Amino acid sequence: MRYELYYWPSIQGRGEFVRLALEEAGADYVDVARRPGQRGMPAMMKLLEGKRTAHPPYAPPFLKAGKLIIAQTAEILFYLGPRLNLAPRDEAGRLWAHQLQLTIADFVVEIHDTHHPIGSGLYYEQQRPAAKRRSREFWKSRVEKFLGYFEAVLDKNGGHYLIGRRLSYVDLSVFQIIEGLRYTFPRNMKRFEKRIPGLVTLRDRVAARPRIKAYLASPRRIAFNEWGIFRHYKELDR
Amino acid sequence: MRYELYYWPSIQGRGEFVRLALEEAGADYVDVARRPGQRGMPAMMKLLEGKRTAHPPYAPPFLKAGKLIIAQTAEILFYLGPRLNLAPRDEAGRLWAHQLQLTIADFVVEIHDTHHPIGSGLYYEQQRPAAKRRSREFWKSRVEKFLGYFEAVLDKNGGHYLIGRRLSYVDLSVFQIIEGLRYTFPRNMKRFEKRIPGLVTLRDRVAARPRIKAYLASPRRIAFNEWGIFRHYKELDR
Repeated sequence: MRYELYYWPSIQGRGEFVRLALEEAGADYVDVARRPGQRGMPAMMKLLEGKRTAHPPYAPPFLKAGKLIIAQTAEILFYLGPRLNLAPRDEAGRLWAHQLQLTIADFVVEIHDTHHPIGSGLYYEQQRPAAKRRSREFWKSRVEKFLGYFEAVLDKNGGHYLIGRRLSYVDLSVFQIIEGLRYTFPRNMKRFEKRIPGLVTLRDRVAARPRIKAYLASPRRIAFNEWGIFRHYKELDR
Repeated sequence: MRYELYYWPSIQGRGEFVRLALEEAGADYVDVARRPGQRGMPAMMKLLEGKRTAHPPYAPPFLKAGKLIIAQTAEILFYLGPRLNLAPRDEAGRLWAHQLQLTIADFVVEIHDTHHPIGSGLYYEQQRPAAKRRSREFWKSRVEKFLGYFEAVLDKNGGHYLIGRRLSYVDLSVFQIIEGLRYTFPRNMKRFEKRIPGLVTLRDRVAARPRIKAYLASPRRIAFNEWGIFRHYKELDR
């Protein structure tokens, strides 16, 4: 099956959590809006408009798998997980993986809102003082709560992977979170990482996997930039 | 099967989306932290601590179903849906219901953040100016985007229910969103409702269902208050 991934072509964003899974699995997929030529974006917008779709997604990313259109990052991974051998196949295992992924999704919103606490319809420059305060609160009480939770889950599971005895899409997503936080808040993250030694080792383990390594070095990996979820603004990194 | 729901005892919060489904189905359940006596909250905190649980939840609400512990509101509903006859049973239908519920979950975060844009660790009074700006942005660009989407989904499906030909947990959740917005932003909502006539009718249809009607009139339904997601602050409702 050739999967079609639909996501904004110039950012990692939420689509990146799906890309990492597809890449690790060596899946056959097309990143539709990034295809050469100008036809990808109109195709994506048409599906979002919903005139020809029974179940139009609310927003990208979404995945076309045969006739199915599946949206919401965590749901896409829930669907792909067992099919790509990146999640357990039994109901309890699938639900546990999904539960962790939904918690990552909650964290992603909070990371995004450090630079956009007032509204995503405004520029960062229009909400800088609020962004400073929110970033301070984020480091004071949120990072430790989220990452401390994942560190504990990893530890409870033996320290190698978050779920079971093999790599899952949740491990790939935690890799992406750490990469993103390093880019966004290099100073804060440097100080914080000693409190999550297990997750840092997991990050290294993921980065060393042959397919992930090749992907990260390829032009398919978009560089972090100031349009995505993870943005580096020096003044927010105190 | 007797389900055990674990959630904070004094607010509707995210637990309410689960309660509505359990109540509509006439399910056998215990709202653990609200049991008479003082033993509910310690039981909940113990499970959150995770010492005796292989898969500790990050936060309430969570559901105990036999040996399974399931967290994340949307995942709990995904699990319960077909079991309570409140969701389709086929994979495509279940995923579509879940996708809509995850979009509701995203909206719930944005509703919450209108009064807490800087941080949930601070009091509302410590972030009032930012809350005013965020509420303005919320009404300017977010409400229409989310509720307009659900209005279109409802319309596309014939106008009676959001999914298929029967009530689903997604309908119950949309009911809760409308109730909550009416409580939180009565002035704004009054003006806005003419743009979502279908959803308003759906809300009435849900409210008239015998079990929901009985539930809403019972002491099991906690009143809206200023500790939950939906809070009424007059100055945010312009």
